[in-house]
Amino acid sequence: MVTNGMDNKTVIAFGADHGGAALKHRLAGALAEAGHEIQDFGTDGPTSVDYPDFAYAVCEAVALGRADFGVLVCGTGIGMSIAANRHPAIRCGLAHDVTTARLSRAHNNANVLALGARIVGEEVARDILHSFIATPYEGGRHDRRLAKLTPNLEPQP
Amino acid sequence: MVTNGMDNKTVIAFGADHGGAALKHRLAGALAEAGHEIQDFGTDGPTSVDYPDFAYAVCEAVALGRADFGVLVCGTGIGMSIAANRHPAIRCGLAHDVTTARLSRAHNNANVLALGARIVGEEVARDILHSFIATPYEGGRHDRRLAKLTPNLEPQP
Repeated sequence: MVTNGMDNKTVIAFGADHGGAALKHRLAGALAEAGHEIQDFGTDGPTSVDYPDFAYAVCEAVALGRADFGVLVCGTGIGMSIAANRHPAIRCGLAHDVTTARLSRAHNNANVLALGARIVGEEVARDILHSFIATPYEGGRHDRRLAKLTPNLEPQP
Repeated sequence: MVTNGMDNKTVIAFGADHGGAALKHRLAGALAEAGHEIQDFGTDGPTSVDYPDFAYAVCEAVALGRADFGVLVCGTGIGMSIAANRHPAIRCGLAHDVTTARLSRAHNNANVLALGARIVGEEVARDILHSFIATPYEGGRHDRRLAKLTPNLEPQP
């Protein structure tokens, strides 16, 4: 957990392309209201941008330990999940349902969540995000598989 | 399209872990019946294995041009999609619905499809796979984004 010197908040870094900007804004607002600390890497409007630019910014924040989790939103979540998983320290799960979000944390220790704003509605996305943040990694047999995803992986929290 | 010296079949490489082996078997059988050439990299039974081993084998076949597409099946598809997207020549889309599968081809030129056997049923998975194989890449504005995913990317077919 990233600390801000005063208390132990979960810090969540958000990024989106133009297809995901509106949903990102709503989700980030909901988490801020719930007491989480938000880092918003944009984009914030409908002007066409390239999803990899925003994915890489969020992943770097998570990889450097400046954020606990990342959330990336584009039209389908596909482009964001490809871009994020290019980073050796990132395990990004694309979830369109609560069960996938839960298992991406429990089994894959995902540290970034990808969402498709043109595939899932806002209420479903809120439940997915809640499930993602609330679920701990199970460890055990999954450690060996994670090590195969990331050579020289540090011990998992 | 990979050619076998006789005709132009679509060649599809399959891989799965123990959670996806049964669905892989059914999907590969359906595609073989439809006239596609199948490469099966296992696993084939319920014995616990590590998904990255099978993801990497399939991705290597696609990256080397030995297969046109890859299909990877695990419990949720999350582990497979993380592993596959580690490979710089692979763009792996995790799809739980036909729309995401279609857009992963049209917008992201995905060359590997990940499926979650514990999330989607066989009929849904068949439709997803059909949509994936049948949809061409649109090119245009998406080329610039793909280039940001893969430095030194060759021209897209």
